[in-house]
Amino acid sequence: MSDSKVTVAVIGTGDIGRGWAALCVAAGWPVWIFDHEAQAVESASAEIAERARRLVTLDRALYRDVEEGVHSLQVGRSLLQACADAQWIIEAVPEDLIIKQKLFEAVESVAPNARIVTSSSSSLLVKDIAARCRRPDRVAIAHPLNPPELIPLVELIPGPHTDGALLEVLKGWLRALNRIPVTIRKQVPGNVAGRIAAAVWREAIDLVLTGVIDVADLDRAVSVGPALGWAAAGPHLTYHLAAGNRGVTGFLQQLLGTFENLWSGLPTWSKLEPEQQRQLVGAIERAYEGQVEQLRTARDRRLAGILRGLEQARQE
Amino acid sequence: MSDSKVTVAVIGTGDIGRGWAALCVAAGWPVWIFDHEAQAVESASAEIAERARRLVTLDRALYRDVEEGVHSLQVGRSLLQACADAQWIIEAVPEDLIIKQKLFEAVESVAPNARIVTSSSSSLLVKDIAARCRRPDRVAIAHPLNPPELIPLVELIPGPHTDGALLEVLKGWLRALNRIPVTIRKQVPGNVAGRIAAAVWREAIDLVLTGVIDVADLDRAVSVGPALGWAAAGPHLTYHLAAGNRGVTGFLQQLLGTFENLWSGLPTWSKLEPEQQRQLVGAIERAYEGQVEQLRTARDRRLAGILRGLEQARQE
Repeated sequence: MSDSKVTVAVIGTGDIGRGWAALCVAAGWPVWIFDHEAQAVESASAEIAERARRLVTLDRALYRDVEEGVHSLQVGRSLLQACADAQWIIEAVPEDLIIKQKLFEAVESVAPNARIVTSSSSSLLVKDIAARCRRPDRVAIAHPLNPPELIPLVELIPGPHTDGALLEVLKGWLRALNRIPVTIRKQVPGNVAGRIAAAVWREAIDLVLTGVIDVADLDRAVSVGPALGWAAAGPHLTYHLAAGNRGVTGFLQQLLGTFENLWSGLPTWSKLEPEQQRQLVGAIERAYEGQVEQLRTARDRRLAGILRGLEQARQE
Repeated sequence: MSDSKVTVAVIGTGDIGRGWAALCVAAGWPVWIFDHEAQAVESASAEIAERARRLVTLDRALYRDVEEGVHSLQVGRSLLQACADAQWIIEAVPEDLIIKQKLFEAVESVAPNARIVTSSSSSLLVKDIAARCRRPDRVAIAHPLNPPELIPLVELIPGPHTDGALLEVLKGWLRALNRIPVTIRKQVPGNVAGRIAAAVWREAIDLVLTGVIDVADLDRAVSVGPALGWAAAGPHLTYHLAAGNRGVTGFLQQLLGTFENLWSGLPTWSKLEPEQQRQLVGAIERAYEGQVEQLRTARDRRLAGILRGLEQARQE
């Protein structure tokens, strides 16, 4: 199953939709794209092809597969045309429940034969998204991070009616795309990655706004410090390995007090006031002035290098 | 300066002290170790040599350097003997202000010629640690993460009296050891890495205890998701690159509301009650049962692979 090509329709051609499409195109899969906004879809094909080809440069895809995928990439003139042959429909429209509900309803009438329909939603509930569907059994959330064609994590959230066998098919497709699906048992706003990212960013903002460290040094410290550790071992495993052979029990005995002190001192604000927004934006823009495109290229190069390094380490 | 070998004395041979020693030994530097607890120092030499040699296997050090360092590794019978020739004294004794103050005072009388004396403290204030010193100008905190011989970040915290020129010498030494020093401007408990780690761990604990995800999946999700992103670009840069060419301004316009919602829902507890500790320990031990040593070896292999991948990406 996971070895054969899957025909995909990506509905919504914003940044996340383009990332999904680039990922599938780079695997040589036939991809249809569609967007209700004619303007959005205009530049989409070219950018998707470019992003897929960049994966060859980054050593994350094979030239032959990418060219095959680019060759079969097509823009649907209607939702019906885009979905007609699709086995997997990926929704990536704006994060608005009504828009998504309507789309999922429309998909039912144009794609009766699609095996799976996934939403890229980061914050809506899968049961709400599928609320108007007669076939909620083939609906799930598959939430990627940015950029979807590079970061392997896909958070998978089945709804109460999602068919378990179909979920396994979906996992096989994701693995065929070199993604790592992780199943969320109980949906909460932000899922797992979003909540952890929110906790980190609040702390990172607070440390800059209170003058503890500047933006570039904060970013560097996280990158070459804790993030490296977590990329090699998640937070729980990190601490399970941090107290010799006594595991997490030994770690808690030694350091729970320190953590409890830190927890009580962490920021708890949940609003970023306009003046703080101005300070933050100013600090970030000063740190990275006018180089967004070069910075993104360098970031992608580092990401690809890390992924190659991890794969080599797993084969050793 | 940074090319020549530095004679180092590491005082305290717990896990962090051994890591510092392994790092310096692996660079071929002459290292003295000392511990007031005779028992602690007993196994230290052998483990330091082993950890330094493991860096060769991991492609993080050269065989010749490591063997030279192992050859010149010595155990001091007294603080005086360990410090007599040292240019750099690294304190890594238990996290207790009185113990550290006494040690820094004692070091003054046995090592009048050492250029720099650093503390590995993660939570004490540098001005308190140096409170009994007549030479606070040569004292700073240089806080590594675990394991110090692999994670490049060293948080550098000068005290109010630290000599700026000496701080530059210290940075040169750290860079010669392939470390990345980042200066903290204003000391707060946990510095930067510790606060961010505390925020992440609380969230990671909460997600497990509330049944959102299990331990192994949480670890996997963080490792192949946000951590990879942050290892390639810190949190501020990540969001600066997440909204096309409009930078962080565009990102805040699109997503500040989502973050404010998430922030208001994040856990704020600062105590882990005994029953929760039991649940957490049980869940972590079930996930990683009886494999601490193999897990650590695999973690180190991944870390080394990531570091190699990053270095290759920087050369591309």
